[in-house]
Amino acid sequence: MNCTKFITGGITCPKGFEAAGVSCGMKSQGKDLMLITAQKPCAVAAVYTKNAVKGAPLTVTAQNILHGRAQAVVCNSGIANCCVEGGVAAAKKICSLTAKALHIPPEDVIVASTGEMGVPLPMDRVEAGIGEAAGACSREGGHDAALAILTDDPTPKELAVEFLVGDVPCYIGGVAKGSGLLRPNMATMLCFLTSDVNIHPELLDRALKEAVEKSFHCMALGGIPSPNDMVTILSSGMAGNGKITDLGDGYQAFCQALSALCLELAKWMAKDSRPGGRLLTCQVHAARTETDALLAAKAVTSCSRVVEALSKGIPCWTDIVCAIGGSGANVDGGAMDVSLSSPASEETVHLCSGCTSLFFDVQKAHDLLKESEIILSVDCNDGFFDAVSYGCLDPVPEL
Amino acid sequence: MNCTKFITGGITCPKGFEAAGVSCGMKSQGKDLMLITAQKPCAVAAVYTKNAVKGAPLTVTAQNILHGRAQAVVCNSGIANCCVEGGVAAAKKICSLTAKALHIPPEDVIVASTGEMGVPLPMDRVEAGIGEAAGACSREGGHDAALAILTDDPTPKELAVEFLVGDVPCYIGGVAKGSGLLRPNMATMLCFLTSDVNIHPELLDRALKEAVEKSFHCMALGGIPSPNDMVTILSSGMAGNGKITDLGDGYQAFCQALSALCLELAKWMAKDSRPGGRLLTCQVHAARTETDALLAAKAVTSCSRVVEALSKGIPCWTDIVCAIGGSGANVDGGAMDVSLSSPASEETVHLCSGCTSLFFDVQKAHDLLKESEIILSVDCNDGFFDAVSYGCLDPVPEL
Repeated sequence: MNCTKFITGGITCPKGFEAAGVSCGMKSQGKDLMLITAQKPCAVAAVYTKNAVKGAPLTVTAQNILHGRAQAVVCNSGIANCCVEGGVAAAKKICSLTAKALHIPPEDVIVASTGEMGVPLPMDRVEAGIGEAAGACSREGGHDAALAILTDDPTPKELAVEFLVGDVPCYIGGVAKGSGLLRPNMATMLCFLTSDVNIHPELLDRALKEAVEKSFHCMALGGIPSPNDMVTILSSGMAGNGKITDLGDGYQAFCQALSALCLELAKWMAKDSRPGGRLLTCQVHAARTETDALLAAKAVTSCSRVVEALSKGIPCWTDIVCAIGGSGANVDGGAMDVSLSSPASEETVHLCSGCTSLFFDVQKAHDLLKESEIILSVDCNDGFFDAVSYGCLDPVPEL
Repeated sequence: MNCTKFITGGITCPKGFEAAGVSCGMKSQGKDLMLITAQKPCAVAAVYTKNAVKGAPLTVTAQNILHGRAQAVVCNSGIANCCVEGGVAAAKKICSLTAKALHIPPEDVIVASTGEMGVPLPMDRVEAGIGEAAGACSREGGHDAALAILTDDPTPKELAVEFLVGDVPCYIGGVAKGSGLLRPNMATMLCFLTSDVNIHPELLDRALKEAVEKSFHCMALGGIPSPNDMVTILSSGMAGNGKITDLGDGYQAFCQALSALCLELAKWMAKDSRPGGRLLTCQVHAARTETDALLAAKAVTSCSRVVEALSKGIPCWTDIVCAIGGSGANVDGGAMDVSLSSPASEETVHLCSGCTSLFFDVQKAHDLLKESEIILSVDCNDGFFDAVSYGCLDPVPEL
């Protein structure tokens, strides 16, 4: 039974959380410092960038949450505090300033940054921002928080889900920022999640890793992971459910809700990586291994040549099979079938069979490629493993 | 002793070869069919694309040269004969038409194609072209051949080297075409080499693989290998040297000459991948393994964000270390030093140390980035392995 229900709201939906977003002059305009506070210490889990270069905030956060507890998240936008002398000291200072303002221990603070690399943080502005944010935190502050972590995303991204553990309603909220318009390569991906579910920290960690694997790690937009990428979750335990301590129904319900929320945020982030962007989904079927399937799917959505052609309405199946063939995925280079569809249409256009052209209706393909969501389906005819990847097309060109 | 001497000319420099390039209407304009003929059957070796999707000509060529001999190379541009019904039959037909015109066995013909995928070859035009080219072959035809394999390369690329085996002068000539302007992803890379050296076919094969590994396989321009990529060498043995049958001095002299020729052609190809392009070389030092060094070097020259910034004169070292950190190379993300230089200048600008900003002379860096050849040097401070990768910058922007 699917009990996950999407609801309006974000990180302050779950019981026990407040948030704020303020402006302290690190970006040329707009809010640039976010604070999330919890009424009491929370169970915590985090997933960090796969880049070998890691921003100073990640080092400090990873150290802080070793003791399995956190009560606040502070994040600035505008300056990344990465590849800079004294970065770790600055990140620690942010934690101690936040801790002081909130009367909690500094090691209970999660710190994150996004923005320009190689330049130092203006600590006086950060200090003023933290003070202001600590005074402004409220249940209504989730949207300001969503605004404060943006760099050049077209829209703030926040969402929440409701689910049942036994008959107790529980909530997860999330706020995210994604890749940046014309320079998606190293735009930081951040997502901060909150929940009121009562769960053992090890299970919280396990559920987060699983959810990230099937959502944020399936975005492939042609770039590389930023040194500051981070996903965290705080769980207050205030929902009143019997504590989840095993992999039974309660854990499954939580996992399902968390995965659904992360997937929606990841798809939103992918779509939002270009102004007016349209979600491109590549489903790969029947590959030899899961790794091959994922390599193949990601090769398609991250191929600039494929994205460029599809955006213009060109059903470029030769580019698609070549992108997969050149991805390093172990596939049969003469066996792939490619088809095109959209959730908004009942049509499916089969473009090629066994990597050889089919006589398809070019106008139908062209029409499908004008939809706001596009699905490419690739059958490798080569095994039993499937995978999916999310990318972004440009708006339909005006003629 | 380095005896390799670059000389003007190309595939008809070595004794025993003639060539022609003709127009048979597969491209909208210009020559589009190349023929290389040898006076007698030659030793042959080939290296093919790493793409799992392989053009029909590669399948037929690989089959043909199994018996270790070839006497002609035929290549058309405009249509790739790839991902198309009946592609293998068409490639075989080209071999038999060429064989008939030259009075040689069809399995002594190497066939290649480059151009649009997924569309059938117009066999009547190809047939007419082969007839015309067979009649036009001459020692002076090398340049026409170089023109006939181009798709959208800015310049035809041909070059030759002279070297000594004992005291006998021997020659290798080469003709190449590379990646295409604004769509480098799947532009075919072709290189046809000829030599008059007398060498055992197994050593010819070994020398070619070695030369390709250190030249064409070090180009990284952000794309993926095309399904039709191919490098071949024919060796007529007519130079009169004592046959090379072991790894002694004669083999070393040949290897050195072949590697030097392939490297020059690869660098030319990289530079020529954008109109007015400038060669970008990334040297990676002190990585943990050779694979890590090569992954790191290729990540830099193939990163569109890095190329875009350097082209504009921005010494984007944070992007460089992040591109390496996100490449999958096993590097210490806090240990890299990056510096900038040019063969045209005595200046070296050290941009960062241990992934942390240095106070460098921005104007000097900016001036270096205006040179026609740029070298990025990355020290991983992490091991004993080096690698190099070649890419391309845009022309210096006019202000």
